[in-house]
Amino acid sequence: MPSALIDGPKIDSLDVKRTFIKEVTDALEKAYGLPRSIYVVLIKENSPENVGVGGELILDKINRASNKK
Amino acid sequence: MPSALIDGPKIDSLDVKRTFIKEVTDALEKAYGLPRSIYVVLIKENSPENVGVGGELILDKINRASNKK
Amino acid sequence: MPSALIDGPKIDSLDVKRTFIKEVTDALEKAYGLPRSIYVVLIKENSPENVGVGGELILDKINRASNKK
Amino acid sequence: MPSALIDGPKIDSLDVKRTFIKEVTDALEKAYGLPRSIYVVLIKENSPENVGVGGELILDKINRASNKK
Amino acid sequence: MPSALIDGPKIDSLDVKRTFIKEVTDALEKAYGLPRSIYVVLIKENSPENVGVGGELILDKINRASNKK
Amino acid sequence: MPSALIDGPKIDSLDVKRTFIKEVTDALEKAYGLPRSIYVVLIKENSPENVGVGGELILDKINRASNKK
Repeated sequence: MPSALIDGPKIDSLDVKRTFIKEVTDALEKAYGLPRSIYVVLIKENSPENVGVGGELILDKINRASNKK
Repeated sequence: MPSALIDGPKIDSLDVKRTFIKEVTDALEKAYGLPRSIYVVLIKENSPENVGVGGELILDKINRASNKK
Repeated sequence: MPSALIDGPKIDSLDVKRTFIKEVTDALEKAYGLPRSIYVVLIKENSPENVGVGGELILDKINRASNKK
Repeated sequence: MPSALIDGPKIDSLDVKRTFIKEVTDALEKAYGLPRSIYVVLIKENSPENVGVGGELILDKINRASNKK
Repeated sequence: MPSALIDGPKIDSLDVKRTFIKEVTDALEKAYGLPRSIYVVLIKENSPENVGVGGELILDKINRASNKK
Repeated sequence: MPSALIDGPKIDSLDVKRTFIKEVTDALEKAYGLPRSIYVVLIKENSPENVGVGGELILDKINRASNKK
């Protein structure tokens, strides 16, 4: 602690995760001023069939968008 | 935000998820009165070996129940 | 469990909370089909100075909106 | 509720989970003094590529440690 | 990390919190086998008007129970 | 969504919160590549009597440190 829990879609690239964790930790360190070693960042990857925005599944939004093409 | 994070067992049916997300969003919209597009609902599916109720794994409760039959 | 954790702004009315909890529980019961007594709904009220959307504090959005009037 | 949400690495042994859930529930029961049946413990298992400590992925820490050998 | 996030009602006694944190950490240490210094336990105290069980506010359950006396 | 939930000690300065939210959102935007308006960052401030690290309350660590002076 302090810790950051991130909920988002899947991130495919390990490099993106690496940079993301570094940058969130930079922001944590600047905000709290505690030793860098104690910050924890946790990425949670969610499937589009388990997330709803505005009352609609992300999965359905994606399907509708790809049908429009 | 506002957001709802749901922790429960696996939901097999996509239609159940669809209706569930819609209904939780309806309740959010009624409670907070903000534009519908901003509500987020997140379903987390948990394995019965990772949940304990009353100090006992759900997995063990299920196994005991099916052994009784 | 199953449980719903709601993060949003402050809700002033106890009646709104009462109805909201009832409706989310109705949705949970319909989705999971387990005994009603086990569903837990938890409301977390957040101050506008602790929530950012689009990189800006809600507090600052509110202040800007009221200055425009 | 009360509930405990545990975030950690994968636990391979079912027996370890069983004992862990029992012990956390014992601690909950002692602290809150409510009927044992209502305590919920939820274990979340995280991949080493989704956790950062001190700004570095656990995955990279593990790899560096095994390269040193 | 590993961490435990506890959601429950208010705990009035500092000693109860002290013992509780110690015991949950003991359980974490036994389950994960990592250095004791890295386990984090976080207690969240919730008001009875913000928690619903079985579709009813804890506040209303408490009031009903005290009216019965 | 995506969203970041931050758990830490109290942050007294509004400017620190403002910068922190901006920087975490920058990191989210870079990692996920979605429209900036949808990222949510939530800061949770915790009292030192509700957080344990290594089995000891932060409150007790602080008190011990100030007694040493």
